[in-house]
Amino acid sequence: MKKYVIGLDFGTNSVRSVIVDVSNGTEISSYVYNYREGVNGVIIDPKDANVARQHPIDYIRGIEFSIKGSLKNAKKIKEFKPENVIGIGVDTTGSTPIPVDKTGEPIVFNKKFKNNINALAWLWKDHTSYAEAEEITQLAKKEYPEYLTKCGGKYSSEWFFSKILHCLRIDPEVFNAAYSWVELADYIPGVLTGHKKPNELKRSVCAAGHKAMFNPKWGGLPSKEFLSKLDPKLGELRDRLYTKAYTADTKAGNLSKYWAEKLGLTENVAVAVGAFDAHMGAVGAGISTGILVKIIGTSTCDMMVVPNTEKLADIPGLCGIVDGSILPNYYGLEAGQSAVGDIFNWFVNNFIPYEYISESNKKKVDIHSLLIKKAEKLRPGESGLLALDWNNGNRTILVDARLTGLILGLTLHTRPEEIYRALIEATGFGAKIIINRFEEYGIKINEVITCGGIPDKNPLLMQIYADIIGIPIKISYSSQTCALGASIFGAVAAGKENGGYETCESAQQHMCKLKKKEYIPIPENQKIYSELFQLYKELHDCFGLENVSRNLYPIMKKLLEIKSKVRI
Amino acid sequence: MKKYVIGLDFGTNSVRSVIVDVSNGTEISSYVYNYREGVNGVIIDPKDANVARQHPIDYIRGIEFSIKGSLKNAKKIKEFKPENVIGIGVDTTGSTPIPVDKTGEPIVFNKKFKNNINALAWLWKDHTSYAEAEEITQLAKKEYPEYLTKCGGKYSSEWFFSKILHCLRIDPEVFNAAYSWVELADYIPGVLTGHKKPNELKRSVCAAGHKAMFNPKWGGLPSKEFLSKLDPKLGELRDRLYTKAYTADTKAGNLSKYWAEKLGLTENVAVAVGAFDAHMGAVGAGISTGILVKIIGTSTCDMMVVPNTEKLADIPGLCGIVDGSILPNYYGLEAGQSAVGDIFNWFVNNFIPYEYISESNKKKVDIHSLLIKKAEKLRPGESGLLALDWNNGNRTILVDARLTGLILGLTLHTRPEEIYRALIEATGFGAKIIINRFEEYGIKINEVITCGGIPDKNPLLMQIYADIIGIPIKISYSSQTCALGASIFGAVAAGKENGGYETCESAQQHMCKLKKKEYIPIPENQKIYSELFQLYKELHDCFGLENVSRNLYPIMKKLLEIKSKVRI
Repeated sequence: MKKYVIGLDFGTNSVRSVIVDVSNGTEISSYVYNYREGVNGVIIDPKDANVARQHPIDYIRGIEFSIKGSLKNAKKIKEFKPENVIGIGVDTTGSTPIPVDKTGEPIVFNKKFKNNINALAWLWKDHTSYAEAEEITQLAKKEYPEYLTKCGGKYSSEWFFSKILHCLRIDPEVFNAAYSWVELADYIPGVLTGHKKPNELKRSVCAAGHKAMFNPKWGGLPSKEFLSKLDPKLGELRDRLYTKAYTADTKAGNLSKYWAEKLGLTENVAVAVGAFDAHMGAVGAGISTGILVKIIGTSTCDMMVVPNTEKLADIPGLCGIVDGSILPNYYGLEAGQSAVGDIFNWFVNNFIPYEYISESNKKKVDIHSLLIKKAEKLRPGESGLLALDWNNGNRTILVDARLTGLILGLTLHTRPEEIYRALIEATGFGAKIIINRFEEYGIKINEVITCGGIPDKNPLLMQIYADIIGIPIKISYSSQTCALGASIFGAVAAGKENGGYETCESAQQHMCKLKKKEYIPIPENQKIYSELFQLYKELHDCFGLENVSRNLYPIMKKLLEIKSKVRI
Repeated sequence: MKKYVIGLDFGTNSVRSVIVDVSNGTEISSYVYNYREGVNGVIIDPKDANVARQHPIDYIRGIEFSIKGSLKNAKKIKEFKPENVIGIGVDTTGSTPIPVDKTGEPIVFNKKFKNNINALAWLWKDHTSYAEAEEITQLAKKEYPEYLTKCGGKYSSEWFFSKILHCLRIDPEVFNAAYSWVELADYIPGVLTGHKKPNELKRSVCAAGHKAMFNPKWGGLPSKEFLSKLDPKLGELRDRLYTKAYTADTKAGNLSKYWAEKLGLTENVAVAVGAFDAHMGAVGAGISTGILVKIIGTSTCDMMVVPNTEKLADIPGLCGIVDGSILPNYYGLEAGQSAVGDIFNWFVNNFIPYEYISESNKKKVDIHSLLIKKAEKLRPGESGLLALDWNNGNRTILVDARLTGLILGLTLHTRPEEIYRALIEATGFGAKIIINRFEEYGIKINEVITCGGIPDKNPLLMQIYADIIGIPIKISYSSQTCALGASIFGAVAAGKENGGYETCESAQQHMCKLKKKEYIPIPENQKIYSELFQLYKELHDCFGLENVSRNLYPIMKKLLEIKSKVRI
């Protein structure tokens, strides 16, 4: 008898429920619930572009309607029976902390705070806490440098303590009303199991390690002393947070009676501890030792795992290194590029001439496809262009938001498709910088698996990336790797005895698949891109690193040389 | 009784005849004759983009039809009488050498060569001779370094000897048939006076000094030894070129009987020695000590004069320093930017989104005007962008065609008008680099007078330039400063006794005027631009000079700082 698991994927604008066949990972049904509050689920402040909040009511509705919707769709399949659902896994955005009361209820559900924007969930992309982030970074650098070693050397305005400290500063009433703060990734399993009280919750090590400087090495969360120096009240809060954190294969509990009845499932359903979307996406894509998973969309997330039995140095510039954040018993390593698809969209939205628009209308293709077609006709190096992909700063390895994009090699004949291609190449070089950083620290990459919005849509990018990094690139079969990853943890939390799996690895072996199409590096392109990468590296270091001086005179000359060489 | 002079301006696509009132410089009539051969007068080779030739028949027709046309228009004015025309001045493109026979007739008029593209005039922008230019430069650098001191250190593929040497190499038959080679600027006065035999011609010191390394210091043209080392036949040719060269106030002769009858003028008309268009344009704009004349169009020409009684060092990077090339008794100094208007046109033709096109259609303004309106709303530094204006290389002060354009400071919010403004600013910074170079060598600039296609059309550019260079900028009243300059030389060649002038200075005093509109630097903008210029200079030196190392890490940061400062 077939068993099923549900992957619940809480995104920025919606929640998706996917029902997956445990035996082979096939998605048999899915349903998306779009958030209703704010603008596509995001509550903004017209006076402050940094504000991005979410109403927890959307999460509660989201659980109900997305799961019900996916069950309804699944019932069209004859062999599917709701009682054969054995597990639920949850992935969410993060860091998205919610101020909650002693019962675990978001305080915004309390009438007193119902109109208070600071009582909402603080969505990952809320940047109001930039000053507090800087304050935390400075204090840690000065007195507790170890806290920053696992998160790239800088504490971000997007993260847990920055947000809480900012709330304390600007809205002490909310801060005081909050018994604790709970990550969305922890809140959802708490709700589903009925164990949402802060001190009952099984908190995710992924959220704790990547966003809250949690590490057993220094006894879990940063010390009371450290937090008190930021603010005595933050020090007090530490006692009401947590001391343990769990990998996502851990069962948070069984589905509560309330939710089992509401959804039409049994109380035997195991609910797994949550984790962040990108991390579960990596699992859904099939991550294991030697495999780099690249989630390529508006930005990228680059994930690797290293067995936690190995000695692993602190790798400077990585966003995070957390034991168990991706797979249990492995260090989870997270890197990323701040903008990839966003750069192409920016270019397409702002700099495409009229004639291209009419050509795309005539040919009934979108502008990206038209530019891809045109750019495919160019050989590597033919445009003479070189760009830096820093239009939204640089996450890995420079960890510097105050960097900007650059294009050089422009002539009076430079065409839009040449710039489009140069921008793709720049993101490819950025990807190679990350790979080199992994390899410099002894982490070998044998295979790259991609997922996200871009791999299926942009074959030109995929071939360019393969040529630049010199490693074959594969594509995850599932188009919903995050939800698939969540469902894998649902299956492991359920356990083998209930029709699931004993380990994540065995679940992955059965449930992860790849597409047939694979991008193999083309040797003659690799040669040119390796020359171009040297030039990119020169620019990267000269503009991106303090105290690295370069004479850049040869760069334009070499680009022109390569250009005339490949045009012959 | 009013006297008149004719300014004959031979451009790339047409010749313009302007009839000017000697007493006050007023243009009373003009007529343009568009060349008929090739593509708008330029004979090209579809197989070689470097080829650009012109048929001398267009010059002959051009003299006749343009002068006749302008006379016909002038006759509508009651007080005008053709017999009161006292002089003709001539300016042309250059270096545009023509192979001629012993009588001064272009050899292409000989049936034998009528279909030979190498027997035509080699138009200034013909670049087929790049290898010979390099050869000449290398030989001079090694053995005759003084030859390059007055022309920026490099001999160009656009110049006299490069073209002749290339002809010798690829078409010895044409080379052998040519008794001599004559610049277009010399050919026209030769034709008009009937003294076109090579050994009778009065050659222009402007053409000789700027394009043929002519300098009395080393006995005129480069030595026979030098030319023979390039090719013995080039050495032999030297004897059939010239040993003297003249300033444009010199009378080449009187109008020949043939042409006087043909045009309906008298034989008393004095024909002045010719010169290049930009140089005469500077005179027409009112150049004198302390005044920089900027001719701003697709590219710029930046001209100054220094009394030849003063000691003047070789100024590295200048295109040319030639005694008498602009005004008699003054060193003529020529600098320039390889692309200005061309950069804005490139951007407008390639990178303007559909919505802007429809907005410009709706508002019935051209795209440049629309972008100017939008860019005017931005404050200096507000875009956070910085560009290098090298899309067509850099003429002054780097003298390097193998440089390319660069833009940095790009974000995901960068808009077309921001880039448009950054490109204008980059050309303004390029202009300041030239001014600084003049001033480093003790040449003080008190005033800038502009002419050319852009000053009237782009008030935004004019204000930005004033703010960047910190000097008030004026605009020549005449929109045909080259033709006006030519007419000034016509008036001086005619002499005071015939109703003209004794000196160029007195002619200029009467005949040159300025527009009322003047662009005054705005102190608060100057402050920001001086910060931005420092950053431009860093980029300029790091990419443009060998062996200048820089750490460019602060550049993006400073741009972001300035951006946030000016946005408050």
